[in-house]
Amino acid sequence: MKVDTIIVGAGTAGLTALHEVRGNTEDFLLINDGRWGTTCAAVGCMPSKALIEVANAFHRRHVFDEFGIRGGEALRADIPAVLAHVRKLRDGFVAGPSSTREKLGRRAISGRARLKGPNRVEVNGEEIEARAIILATGSRPVVPKAWAGFGDRILTSDSLFEQKDLPRRIAVIGMGAIGVEIAQALARLGVEVAGFDALDGLAGISDPRILASFRPMIAREILLHLGAPAELAATQGGVLVSGAGGNYEADAVLAAMGRRPNIDGLGLETLGVALDARGMPEIDPTTLRLGDLPVFLTGDANGYRPLMHEAADEGHIAGRNAAPDAANLPHCRRTPLAIVFSSPQIARVGEAVSEIPEARRASGSFDFAKQPRARMSGAAAGLLRVHADRETGMLLGAEMCIPAAEHIAHLLALAIERKTTVWDLLAAPFYHPVLEEGLRSALRDVARSLPAKDGSDLALCGPTGHEALD
Amino acid sequence: MKVDTIIVGAGTAGLTALHEVRGNTEDFLLINDGRWGTTCAAVGCMPSKALIEVANAFHRRHVFDEFGIRGGEALRADIPAVLAHVRKLRDGFVAGPSSTREKLGRRAISGRARLKGPNRVEVNGEEIEARAIILATGSRPVVPKAWAGFGDRILTSDSLFEQKDLPRRIAVIGMGAIGVEIAQALARLGVEVAGFDALDGLAGISDPRILASFRPMIAREILLHLGAPAELAATQGGVLVSGAGGNYEADAVLAAMGRRPNIDGLGLETLGVALDARGMPEIDPTTLRLGDLPVFLTGDANGYRPLMHEAADEGHIAGRNAAPDAANLPHCRRTPLAIVFSSPQIARVGEAVSEIPEARRASGSFDFAKQPRARMSGAAAGLLRVHADRETGMLLGAEMCIPAAEHIAHLLALAIERKTTVWDLLAAPFYHPVLEEGLRSALRDVARSLPAKDGSDLALCGPTGHEALD
Repeated sequence: MKVDTIIVGAGTAGLTALHEVRGNTEDFLLINDGRWGTTCAAVGCMPSKALIEVANAFHRRHVFDEFGIRGGEALRADIPAVLAHVRKLRDGFVAGPSSTREKLGRRAISGRARLKGPNRVEVNGEEIEARAIILATGSRPVVPKAWAGFGDRILTSDSLFEQKDLPRRIAVIGMGAIGVEIAQALARLGVEVAGFDALDGLAGISDPRILASFRPMIAREILLHLGAPAELAATQGGVLVSGAGGNYEADAVLAAMGRRPNIDGLGLETLGVALDARGMPEIDPTTLRLGDLPVFLTGDANGYRPLMHEAADEGHIAGRNAAPDAANLPHCRRTPLAIVFSSPQIARVGEAVSEIPEARRASGSFDFAKQPRARMSGAAAGLLRVHADRETGMLLGAEMCIPAAEHIAHLLALAIERKTTVWDLLAAPFYHPVLEEGLRSALRDVARSLPAKDGSDLALCGPTGHEALD
Repeated sequence: MKVDTIIVGAGTAGLTALHEVRGNTEDFLLINDGRWGTTCAAVGCMPSKALIEVANAFHRRHVFDEFGIRGGEALRADIPAVLAHVRKLRDGFVAGPSSTREKLGRRAISGRARLKGPNRVEVNGEEIEARAIILATGSRPVVPKAWAGFGDRILTSDSLFEQKDLPRRIAVIGMGAIGVEIAQALARLGVEVAGFDALDGLAGISDPRILASFRPMIAREILLHLGAPAELAATQGGVLVSGAGGNYEADAVLAAMGRRPNIDGLGLETLGVALDARGMPEIDPTTLRLGDLPVFLTGDANGYRPLMHEAADEGHIAGRNAAPDAANLPHCRRTPLAIVFSSPQIARVGEAVSEIPEARRASGSFDFAKQPRARMSGAAAGLLRVHADRETGMLLGAEMCIPAAEHIAHLLALAIERKTTVWDLLAAPFYHPVLEEGLRSALRDVARSLPAKDGSDLALCGPTGHEALD
């Protein structure tokens, strides 16, 4: 059998690649092993965000008395009902993508694909030749093999949302973005949560000052054991977790140690390109092409930027580069943006502080604990730091643990993408009273380290009063 | 007596003007009648936002059952405690600005100023000569004189937050931004609220499609009587309000018919400049100067853009133009931005749809009722419309009634201020799952009416893969 293009994997990257491929040809196969549809909708961002929404709504009762709302102490979270609600919402979001399979008919194949060279794929015992191959096999949660013996006392993000109820005590191993989000949500729903991590970080925060701001806030809600690998031992009906600062006996353990690209058994070694110790080839993020081959490795499977919006871009780029008449079409990647949906939210935009040479850097910060709208909400709020080029004033990056970080981060991402300076951003309107005024304070703080300007955020206008002179 | 500069009014515009004046001279007087400090902090944006925060927190109980949170039906709002909480927060915000008076000592005068010509001000029976005069006398709620007889049954935003308790039924007269915000907050706290307006609009919405989206949502919470002037008649202990669609008997009436510039009795007629029928001179928004005189009219007092952030800009501009050696320094004004803190929030950015010639306009929209994060929150969500130049793709304006409109509007305001095109904005990162993805959908909808592009949001890169070709 021979087709123009084979796509392996029907998640976000595979489906956006398919969209591009279909602009050129209907002679394709989409091969998928296991669940059809995006990781995000099924077990990733969507159910976790639904759980966080409920957890935060329930947590809000702690400000009720200060607000003058009575009866909050009688509220309780009905965990089986909460989980059923999360699944119901999730199933609504999943419905769309998974119907792709039915629509494609015989061009959709369920089975595990394996490369047999740059133009050959084997699936379900059959070898198929293809002019181009797009790999989008995704990732799966890391769970140490030694933990297999703990059976259903080990949860992952794949199984958590399928639970009918939750036990009283959960240890979350891995305090990255997913670990922190879920640990906090579970704690807010009334589960006792202990969080372990081999390293001393939280939620992927790169800036030590943001970490120092966030840590005491999250420590009020979960027991933190950071800085030593966790070890598990079975107890009567539970698991004893040993890590930094002592032991914790849990009823279940959530493995949140990251996700591993699904490249084992994929046959990348048959392509003739160099592979590193993990079996991963070198990735050109602007084409996703492997060497000079008509083979593309996209999405979580290449480990480059394992985020849904990046996976969509990578499927798009690979699909365009895989066209029969495509010259090499290197595409610019977007300004890096990462958001953690904790409370307060964490976000990083552009370059991390450690990536900017200190001699080039002008930094400013603002503590949102002082911000009026943040104070009104009664929610925890930490630090925002913004970095710009010391000479040009061009925004380079920011990191924050503040309310509505998801929104402030999108504003900053647009600013960085458009090569905006601190002064340009200060010329935009900041309404009152809004959280964005805290961003303005941080920008003014940066501006104090920049070459002096004429003392106004506003540009001078032409004589009509309606035209900028620039 | 003779000084360099007199500032009349110690609100937002007056205080930012003072900041600029002090860069040049310490020979000034600040004259203020009544309360010292900003309208916003004392009786405007701050207490209303605090009330809205509590009202929304209480209203959230309606999604609790669906979320799996039990006991929400027993929650109740303790109105006297809610009002006390609002005042406590408010008093914290007010503390700062009002201390200005003490710091200025004899240069701060309490009294009502009246112009006696372009260089003369009378206050407390004394005439003072000044090289420059900055007027920043603010505004006050409009209350028809005929309503004086209803006594304390008439509330305004000045008196509402001073109440110890609220009656069972309140009629809000005037459904502009302030009227809608407060009416909805009171309704969410359990007050029965009827909203009246002489016109058929709501919350200052300019786009009929946004109005059509918002109206049914707000109509679920307050009784709407739109399209005819309201008339009041006393009843036993209450007020009978007659308006469009019938009568409503209320225990109190909140006058929310807008605010009137405080220019009566100010002596503007002594300046020799032309005044319109309301007694208002022509305003140059880029200088705030009246004619060629050393007199400036700023902030709410000129009625141009009665918003806190605009008042701050106007004080700043006037202060700079009032300097002894100042050439004429016309300053560009910021992209217009207006936000109403209702649920869903309403915002308008840039040009209103009616201001953009139809032949020039490409429009797109997205209904946030379909947006995943909006659906997860269980909150009401309406329409976003975005307008661009049909030829260049440059963003011109947007209006919306959606959750987090305050944040989406800031993003769009930056985009418009920076002359960004629809394609530029689509090249920025949109995370997942976030409300900003709904904005992206609206932008893609606009793009369908624009000249075709090459089918990618991403620019092509140079051979290094890290440099844009543009």
